[in-house]
Amino acid sequence: MADKEISQAVIGRLPRYFRYLGDLKERGVERVSSQELSDIMKVTASQIRQDLNNFGGFGQQGYGYNVGYLYDEIGKILGLDKTHSLVIIGAGHLGQAIAGYTNFTRRGFVFKGAFDKNPALFGTKIRDVEVRPVDEVVDFIRENNIEIAVLTIPKEQAVPMSQKLIGSGIKAIWNFAHVDLDVPDNIQVENVHLSDSLMKLSYNIDRYESTLKD
Amino acid sequence: MADKEISQAVIGRLPRYFRYLGDLKERGVERVSSQELSDIMKVTASQIRQDLNNFGGFGQQGYGYNVGYLYDEIGKILGLDKTHSLVIIGAGHLGQAIAGYTNFTRRGFVFKGAFDKNPALFGTKIRDVEVRPVDEVVDFIRENNIEIAVLTIPKEQAVPMSQKLIGSGIKAIWNFAHVDLDVPDNIQVENVHLSDSLMKLSYNIDRYESTLKD
Repeated sequence: MADKEISQAVIGRLPRYFRYLGDLKERGVERVSSQELSDIMKVTASQIRQDLNNFGGFGQQGYGYNVGYLYDEIGKILGLDKTHSLVIIGAGHLGQAIAGYTNFTRRGFVFKGAFDKNPALFGTKIRDVEVRPVDEVVDFIRENNIEIAVLTIPKEQAVPMSQKLIGSGIKAIWNFAHVDLDVPDNIQVENVHLSDSLMKLSYNIDRYESTLKD
Repeated sequence: MADKEISQAVIGRLPRYFRYLGDLKERGVERVSSQELSDIMKVTASQIRQDLNNFGGFGQQGYGYNVGYLYDEIGKILGLDKTHSLVIIGAGHLGQAIAGYTNFTRRGFVFKGAFDKNPALFGTKIRDVEVRPVDEVVDFIRENNIEIAVLTIPKEQAVPMSQKLIGSGIKAIWNFAHVDLDVPDNIQVENVHLSDSLMKLSYNIDRYESTLKD
């Protein structure tokens, strides 16, 4: 399935389907129509049908979707039926917050190592994982077949770090530093630029207020 | 300017323009062509011209864009020429990470209060701001004209909290809880669903590997 070209916009919506279906499953709901999903998710029913058709459908006319089946299938598409190992580079509050999300563990993301440049943190533990010197990160990734590096370091350090990670065997960078990284195609990058999100919020506050004045 | 209907996709890109222009400005660059911006930002020059035309242009044929002017104007559009007060609800690692971003302060976001339900945290300080009992948050928002509430609490607490915030005078919720909130139009919501972002990364790892196998 995953070899078909699917737009990043659709991929971007899948985790949300997965989340809502997970909620329905927890509440014991066994089937759902695209109309019902549409009401909960505030997306049109036709958008839902179109999105899910990208993956061969799963729906049956007049029956709707089997919640458990659809949940599992979207989980597989998202690669959540496998485990993914990750290291956190930058053991500050943000790094510790991410390491602490039990939700990630439940989804198969396994926290294997934490790195920092501050010697005061070496040997301290985050959820049973010892913080190591950042100089050791490339060897650690290589020796432990780590797939994902989470960058929770300042932007000045993120660019040189991303360059060091090229060739370490890392498959993906989850980047929280406020800078876009330039890495080859064999390394997937997902950015979480918190400032960008906050600026968008600021824009929407202003915009709403200016519509009130009109 | 802000009363014109501009798509959220364009708004979503403005912080990135702002970031790149800020970098150019810091490096002392005074003007830039859409082609040069295109090369740095990896967006087509025509996309850049189109996006900036939404705000009346700013470019001059044959001269390009004045970096400082464009930076300031985009800043104004994003509402960054004003200050915005915020409180953080949930004083764990994530809340502390956000409170600690000096970058936000520089952009005019002023951290005024921190709230938690854990009595052990009451009276402790995050950047000179005392952590208070979460029961006091609505009164605090009302008395201090707080504009933005940052929700860094578990998803089970986020929905009832968002309901409590309705009518407090809050203008926006920056939501890190892994749930979509249902609030009236006068409250702007921006979600940062970290799990969604991590799942997208997982998908892209798998997809890249399956293209290699083809």
